[in-house]
Amino acid sequence: MRAIIKTLIGASVLSLAAQGGALAQSELLEEARSYFKPIPHAVPTVKGNTITREKIDLGRKLFFDPRLSLSGLLSCNSCHNLGMGGDDNLETSIGHGWQKGPRNAPTVLNAVFNLAQFWDGRAEDLKEQAKGPVQAGVEMASTPERVEAVLNSMPGYTEQFARAFPGEDKATNFDNMAKAIEAYEATLITPASKFDLFLEGNENALNAQEKQGLQAFMDTGCAACHGGVNIGGEGYYPFGVVEKPGADVLPANDKGRFAVTQTAEEEYVFRASPLRNIELTAPYFHSGKVWDLKQAVAIMASSQLGAELTDEDIDAITAFLKTLTGEQPVVEYPILPVRTDSTPLPDPSVMTAH
Amino acid sequence: MRAIIKTLIGASVLSLAAQGGALAQSELLEEARSYFKPIPHAVPTVKGNTITREKIDLGRKLFFDPRLSLSGLLSCNSCHNLGMGGDDNLETSIGHGWQKGPRNAPTVLNAVFNLAQFWDGRAEDLKEQAKGPVQAGVEMASTPERVEAVLNSMPGYTEQFARAFPGEDKATNFDNMAKAIEAYEATLITPASKFDLFLEGNENALNAQEKQGLQAFMDTGCAACHGGVNIGGEGYYPFGVVEKPGADVLPANDKGRFAVTQTAEEEYVFRASPLRNIELTAPYFHSGKVWDLKQAVAIMASSQLGAELTDEDIDAITAFLKTLTGEQPVVEYPILPVRTDSTPLPDPSVMTAH
Repeated sequence: MRAIIKTLIGASVLSLAAQGGALAQSELLEEARSYFKPIPHAVPTVKGNTITREKIDLGRKLFFDPRLSLSGLLSCNSCHNLGMGGDDNLETSIGHGWQKGPRNAPTVLNAVFNLAQFWDGRAEDLKEQAKGPVQAGVEMASTPERVEAVLNSMPGYTEQFARAFPGEDKATNFDNMAKAIEAYEATLITPASKFDLFLEGNENALNAQEKQGLQAFMDTGCAACHGGVNIGGEGYYPFGVVEKPGADVLPANDKGRFAVTQTAEEEYVFRASPLRNIELTAPYFHSGKVWDLKQAVAIMASSQLGAELTDEDIDAITAFLKTLTGEQPVVEYPILPVRTDSTPLPDPSVMTAH
Repeated sequence: MRAIIKTLIGASVLSLAAQGGALAQSELLEEARSYFKPIPHAVPTVKGNTITREKIDLGRKLFFDPRLSLSGLLSCNSCHNLGMGGDDNLETSIGHGWQKGPRNAPTVLNAVFNLAQFWDGRAEDLKEQAKGPVQAGVEMASTPERVEAVLNSMPGYTEQFARAFPGEDKATNFDNMAKAIEAYEATLITPASKFDLFLEGNENALNAQEKQGLQAFMDTGCAACHGGVNIGGEGYYPFGVVEKPGADVLPANDKGRFAVTQTAEEEYVFRASPLRNIELTAPYFHSGKVWDLKQAVAIMASSQLGAELTDEDIDAITAFLKTLTGEQPVVEYPILPVRTDSTPLPDPSVMTAH
């Protein structure tokens, strides 16, 4: 009888302990929910651009079409590779004439959730962003006029533009190209990461180390800038709040958002990087100089927060960051419209790039 | 009564005429079948390389992986774009350091049916071919050693190589890379073109002009070199049998198969180009100098056969050639294995290219 009672007491103590554990986890989840939101499973709405099946289909073709570049080699996907986390995994991108781009290519995945586009936020949204690289001499080196000539030369495009933008007089134009690309990019979201499952209430989705990392991510202060749906991408902050990193990581000549606003206090200010799928998008920072995620975590902690993290914390935060890898978009590679005799010829020459 | 008889006679004459027409068409089909074969609907077998689902899946990843190139930018698909008829639609390809390739990129579609690979047939098969561009300094500029280091650094690859090549000791190697790519490329076939439907017995698949073109294609002598499954790709012939085209189309310094065999009579000898999907793969010839398919037809007729075709014949042959466009492969864009800390860094520098 005493043995039975002892067993009952033991079970009760165990049960209390388990309950205590469950409570502790719930606090973690509650705190996490105050900072972060899961990636939605449905395509989000986009301001000023109704997302339709026709626009998405057209945008997918445009996203993969190298004829939007002057050379005929480079497409959006060249630098925002959907098989590699939505960027090119290069320090900085390679553009027309093998030119080296000025900054590391940001991922296109979940970019629709960012407050603005580019490292310095100079494009309000994805349709404005899409017009940039197409024209940049160091990237695709085309012009709106050339792009419109290319697209209007192919019935395979003009028919699809007419369907995607019904009722418009000259539907096949540069602005609508950008809108269609934005519509496609709005579908490039990666839900159902381990962390999303956790946020949605499945507390077993993270293991002990990942939970420790999540706690450290919040306690250290990372979540103050890297929060919301995209765990970042929602505000601008100086790189080196506490201590400027070395010139290798933060080159002196790239003053970030200062170039956009011409405001002295915005020197070396950048948009906080969204950390979704961060495991897939090395190298890191706008300079693309850091390949090791742990090193990136350590640099951020010291430069932004004045924190010297222990190796254990760095490992835990890194483990947590790897839970941000979501389901990658399933992409059917598009069959592109056939050129016609009136399609402008590709021009790989470097002299004509502007 | 006489009216009825007259009607019956009339109907009978009409019926005979129709039968005559049917007979004429059947002769066309019979003659066509003596030259050409349809693209099979199933993946063909490949000598020395059993095609398995595991190899195909692995090969698809490798085909799209830019990390097989030194720069990290260029993949097989860069020059053999599956959305553009299996080539890059450029005069010659753009390679490492923006170098200009020596010859127009041949299509990868249906390449498994060619007697050998490259314009000069210097690779016996696709697995030998696949090793070429990866190493060519003017193309992907990597080395077998580097490729093996890249692939072995990623569990996402080593596990897949182990599955694709079971029982092999060091399965993740350069030879197996080539075999997997060959397996994937063997699936890149385009059946069910209008001409295939015709060859399979549906004589209505071609319209009157296309049939006229098919007849002219055989009568003029084109089919002597451009026959078989791939309507070409089955033999080597001098470019300019009758009359050498101008140096713009046939540059003097590219002596074709002579470089492979060192035989004087093989100067300016090339593999007869396979004409499947030719509508999708402008520009034409090994020099890539001709963008207009009609012009290419006229040049071939005069240089190879001494024939001055009428505009009507050129139009008809061109219409026939456009019936060779088959169903393009449905490709799910692959999610590539994630790099690790031991993955060699990409190197876009031109100095280190070899």
